[in-house]
Amino acid sequence: MITGQNFIGKTRSAQGSIHFSTYNPLKNERNQEQYFEATEEEIDQAVTLATSAFPAFRESAGAERAKFLRAIAEEISRLGDQLILTYCRESGLPEGRAIGERGRTLNQLQSFAHFIENEDWRHPVIETADAERQPQPRPDLRNVLFAIGPVAVFGAGNFPFAFSTAGGDTVSALAAGSPVVYKCHPMHAGTSELVASAIIKAAENTGMPDGVFSHLHSQGTTVGQQLVVHSGIKAVGFTGSMAGGRALYDLAGQREEPIPVFSEMGSVNPVFLLPDALKTNADSWAVKFASSITLGAGQFCTNPGLLIGIAGEGLDQFASTLSTSLENSEQGTMLHPDIHQNYLRCASTQKKQPNTRIVSDPGESDKNYKAAPVLLTVSGHDFMQNPGLQHEVFGPFSLLVSCSDLEEMLDVVETLKGQLTGTVVGEMAELSQNGELVKKLQSKVGRLLFNGVPTGVEVSEAMQHGGPYPATTDSRFTSVGMRAIYRWVRPVCFQDCPQSLLPAILKDTNPLSINRKVNGKYTDHPL
Amino acid sequence: MITGQNFIGKTRSAQGSIHFSTYNPLKNERNQEQYFEATEEEIDQAVTLATSAFPAFRESAGAERAKFLRAIAEEISRLGDQLILTYCRESGLPEGRAIGERGRTLNQLQSFAHFIENEDWRHPVIETADAERQPQPRPDLRNVLFAIGPVAVFGAGNFPFAFSTAGGDTVSALAAGSPVVYKCHPMHAGTSELVASAIIKAAENTGMPDGVFSHLHSQGTTVGQQLVVHSGIKAVGFTGSMAGGRALYDLAGQREEPIPVFSEMGSVNPVFLLPDALKTNADSWAVKFASSITLGAGQFCTNPGLLIGIAGEGLDQFASTLSTSLENSEQGTMLHPDIHQNYLRCASTQKKQPNTRIVSDPGESDKNYKAAPVLLTVSGHDFMQNPGLQHEVFGPFSLLVSCSDLEEMLDVVETLKGQLTGTVVGEMAELSQNGELVKKLQSKVGRLLFNGVPTGVEVSEAMQHGGPYPATTDSRFTSVGMRAIYRWVRPVCFQDCPQSLLPAILKDTNPLSINRKVNGKYTDHPL
Repeated sequence: MITGQNFIGKTRSAQGSIHFSTYNPLKNERNQEQYFEATEEEIDQAVTLATSAFPAFRESAGAERAKFLRAIAEEISRLGDQLILTYCRESGLPEGRAIGERGRTLNQLQSFAHFIENEDWRHPVIETADAERQPQPRPDLRNVLFAIGPVAVFGAGNFPFAFSTAGGDTVSALAAGSPVVYKCHPMHAGTSELVASAIIKAAENTGMPDGVFSHLHSQGTTVGQQLVVHSGIKAVGFTGSMAGGRALYDLAGQREEPIPVFSEMGSVNPVFLLPDALKTNADSWAVKFASSITLGAGQFCTNPGLLIGIAGEGLDQFASTLSTSLENSEQGTMLHPDIHQNYLRCASTQKKQPNTRIVSDPGESDKNYKAAPVLLTVSGHDFMQNPGLQHEVFGPFSLLVSCSDLEEMLDVVETLKGQLTGTVVGEMAELSQNGELVKKLQSKVGRLLFNGVPTGVEVSEAMQHGGPYPATTDSRFTSVGMRAIYRWVRPVCFQDCPQSLLPAILKDTNPLSINRKVNGKYTDHPL
Repeated sequence: MITGQNFIGKTRSAQGSIHFSTYNPLKNERNQEQYFEATEEEIDQAVTLATSAFPAFRESAGAERAKFLRAIAEEISRLGDQLILTYCRESGLPEGRAIGERGRTLNQLQSFAHFIENEDWRHPVIETADAERQPQPRPDLRNVLFAIGPVAVFGAGNFPFAFSTAGGDTVSALAAGSPVVYKCHPMHAGTSELVASAIIKAAENTGMPDGVFSHLHSQGTTVGQQLVVHSGIKAVGFTGSMAGGRALYDLAGQREEPIPVFSEMGSVNPVFLLPDALKTNADSWAVKFASSITLGAGQFCTNPGLLIGIAGEGLDQFASTLSTSLENSEQGTMLHPDIHQNYLRCASTQKKQPNTRIVSDPGESDKNYKAAPVLLTVSGHDFMQNPGLQHEVFGPFSLLVSCSDLEEMLDVVETLKGQLTGTVVGEMAELSQNGELVKKLQSKVGRLLFNGVPTGVEVSEAMQHGGPYPATTDSRFTSVGMRAIYRWVRPVCFQDCPQSLLPAILKDTNPLSINRKVNGKYTDHPL
């Protein structure tokens, strides 16, 4: 049931007087429900409760938290059609996408549950004492990762499930043992409240301390700002715009106690098209990229917004087929009138950039909030002169950069800012010959793809969804995949600790029967 | 030979007009050599050279960099007596300490060399493709850590070897494959230049690209600031004061491209003395802590600046013996007149804090720059009222907090700020009964010690030298021990990458014969 209230732990709360509603872009109308923006007092209550839940949650066994995550998946499934319908009427996205994204979110919960059941992810390292060591005896040292404390998570507008309430940031923090205070995205407050109710139910059913999860509604930026500067918050996870992600990063850095912020702010995901690939397969690559550019109305942070090739017949053919494919592709409804407005404005800015030329632009759609795909082109030389051409246009937009030769293509790589992904399309032989391009591109990205499209992010241990700034605020971490958990943990070293006070994971007897690094060698034996 | 010049890679350079000299506190005189403060142009040259050296250095084999680190150790050893003499006349520290610290630094180089020879520290994870997977095929994903880019390292005043030129930050960055631009500490510029010459020689002899290490002299804060805001610098390592560490952190966060800063800023290292331990062993604990407090004239970031006990005979006995031991201990010369002045000022501030009482204070020493140990006491209640009592006094100072009972001791833990270490001294039975105290203390520290003193930091994989703010700016990392390397690396994921373009560590054939996580299981077999 959608009540419009916040969750302070398991307790529903609506102390404030500011209301807002969500929007149905398909019907071009406001949805009926009213949501109560969280007050500063409610924010404080949520963080205080998270802080009191933290010690027990941190000490809970991985297997217990795994049960909690699986119960969340179960409760989300139980929400059934109501959840899917709410998702669709708050996002304008089609039912198939909603169901697919729910599946991805449930899988993500299951994958993290599996990952933390075996606690070796906490990297236990044991070095036993050596009383004879010269010049000083060596102490007994045992090191293992523990949760860092309550985490503030900000939901993404473009993924109401997978990067939101029970999405990657929340699930990785809960998996680590860090309570989450979630700042709901105002565009899908109803979807979010339903998912939050599933998390709360799962927490109760699996005996988690009250406060491991709270859910705050907010329309503007105030709630998020107040949350990030609250002294009880120890880290922040954010997926969204450059402006928002950087603002939170700056705010967190100015606290008396600065805290780590992982902001994933998107990128233009450059694609390098090598000549032989276009000589033989210009059409099929064009069709694939048209589909990647328009997927989800282009509202993906891995959307290929920059296509870089070498001038010639192959690139002309690619551009022509891409243009036709874009024009023929079905236009998707954007998430919100504001998002659509922003798309039109940003695309228009790029069209006006000096020396760009329109390849494909069907003009503004007659249907409200449908996104018409736009393809521009510019020379490599002009691209390098104008950093503004690297700005992300959130929507089905791409810029085709036509380089005079391979040298210029290498220069283009050098000018690129940090990216989530970089892609190289080429025939096997030319790929091998272009190791330098690949190496240069590797320096700029978190994920390097070959002969594929960047949209579609696997949830697994080998994934890297992150990259040098401005893709994220810390390239050393990922926000997708199991290793996202390492954002929310810190090592604690126990020196000469009596067995009775050691956490189970570090005891001589190895009661968890896990693989530990003992005096330099991995073993699951007791000491 | 000490020339006073900077090293821009292997080239000596002295373009500036600002000179300074170091100080010999033992002789109370300036040392003769003049050092040329690096100019903005020299800083830019050093960073540019580091940037150009980076791609090759990043791709170099761990075994090659291990040779480089071992060659550094060898070249430092070759500097022989001249290095030790320079160290002593720039720090006032005794020869034994210089030799001991050199040994520790050489061991550190050897340990990192050993650690990176086997590249499994880079966490290679391989997930092979699955064309049949539903609803989408699974791509081939391979993830491994690479160096992040040129790192700016700031040397510490109190460890001219171990936390300076070839110290933990430098060696962990070089081990990772990140070039280092080193900002020399002005108090031991000669020592630093000698060590720098050893690093440069080692780099040349082992074929490292020019620019993997540069060495910049500077007297004030300008060079450091210019270095941290240079766009070519990708991370910062700092050991030193709270003011300095926070200033660099803030500066780095305000860059157009913000970069991670690991500032280790020290702490007061609280020690909890449980009653039974003092009932039986007050005297021997007092002697041990007197020695820890005065070690190196108290100029250690792990100096026990806060001793917390429960009022009673045991604590009285402890205080009395501690006081006598401190008064009888030999006074060490402080590193520099300014450090000595700062010690007197900070200790004096604490003496004037309301409701503190002097237990031991021999008054200002008649010998120049000798540090007279100071012990104050305050009640638990008054301690909790006054956050100023938690300020670090850099030198042989400690504050004894006398709690009324165990409850109050638990409240004191709650009020503590983040710390590098926390210590509990107790008999086995009382330790087991005080699990709550231990857990609360664990929340505040990076390293938790039992029945020992916090001074003395083991260089090993299990060490954690870091902790919640203000001990450091990022509790998720350590600056001592092998895991310090993880500050300077970031993951890169290769999706569907042809074998010929994969780095050796991720190739099917496993040419490095290392342990990799392949489809969820560790194996050193080829695929």
